[in-house]
Amino acid sequence: MKLEIGPDITARLRRELFQISQRHEDFLAFEVMAQRHIQISGEWYSIFVASDLEEKVEENGSMRIFVELIYALDNSSLYFKFQTKVNGECTEFSAVADKTEEDGVYSVNYDGYNVFRISEFGDSTYIIVYLANFNKDRPYQVLEFYAREPDVSPELKNEFVEIAQKRGIVKENIIDLTKIDRCFQIRGSGVSQA
Amino acid sequence: MKLEIGPDITARLRRELFQISQRHEDFLAFEVMAQRHIQISGEWYSIFVASDLEEKVEENGSMRIFVELIYALDNSSLYFKFQTKVNGECTEFSAVADKTEEDGVYSVNYDGYNVFRISEFGDSTYIIVYLANFNKDRPYQVLEFYAREPDVSPELKNEFVEIAQKRGIVKENIIDLTKIDRCFQIRGSGVSQA
Repeated sequence: MKLEIGPDITARLRRELFQISQRHEDFLAFEVMAQRHIQISGEWYSIFVASDLEEKVEENGSMRIFVELIYALDNSSLYFKFQTKVNGECTEFSAVADKTEEDGVYSVNYDGYNVFRISEFGDSTYIIVYLANFNKDRPYQVLEFYAREPDVSPELKNEFVEIAQKRGIVKENIIDLTKIDRCFQIRGSGVSQA
Repeated sequence: MKLEIGPDITARLRRELFQISQRHEDFLAFEVMAQRHIQISGEWYSIFVASDLEEKVEENGSMRIFVELIYALDNSSLYFKFQTKVNGECTEFSAVADKTEEDGVYSVNYDGYNVFRISEFGDSTYIIVYLANFNKDRPYQVLEFYAREPDVSPELKNEFVEIAQKRGIVKENIIDLTKIDRCFQIRGSGVSQA
């Protein structure tokens, strides 16, 4: 195949070359991230949610949500599936978070623009999500504690409460989700679309 | 100019086309951001700094810093010039923050990876910087209050203290910088390099 290219580079060629370069970058990023992601993919349970903004974690609050699944996608994004209760009714939704330039830090649009880090907590069967919401009117922070099992020891719960309190979150806004209805009745009922 | 291209597209051509596309994107982004940035550029004074992690705002803390200048750069990044006191001695440094995909939200590497939003506070002569540091071991938040003048009214100060407290920051970690040495003696002594 031979092509002639004058000073005007065609938009089509430019687009195609850009796509090639993007695919190559995605592939490289995936190789780097693949191993890291293995341990995050799979089933999770929300144990605690905490926020400095009470309305976000109280009933019908946008961050009072229960994780079911996390999947590392081929392009290094993370797929999340959640259940939540809206006006007393269980419902589910999903979200895809994109990696940022910083390893282990992701961004997602949900109730505004959010950036979060996932940190291992104890061994790799527990994680804490440190999330900052950059809502224009009222930025706020959220801490979430996920485990591989529906419940954890009282010692581990106390440890999380202390971490949240050190971040300035008052006890009333640190919600033990194991004590409320986490919509287990609709858990596992299929993968919803983002 | 005529070029022959076989199935192997040369790396050089690919790189050049990518650069053209990048320059075009930067130009578009600059057009959109230019007006927004006019009001942020220029001289500022740090009035308060607050953090949920005390060591960051106490003496020699990485976030106990005094802004002198902010400039909106042509590529939509923001240049900051600061003074700070290291072991009792005034010194200066600068940082360049890059825009994120969210309007008004920037990222910068400084004591780890940071994401921040700049919000107007009252009229456009005051701003609050809401910053989240995604340090791997210990993420933390910082609130900064900048004004166009070296000091502001007690009412405005109280208003900021209340905002910081609502974000869960205890009073001891909300530092009134107007009451300490902000290194004015080296302010205005030339633009340092990032």
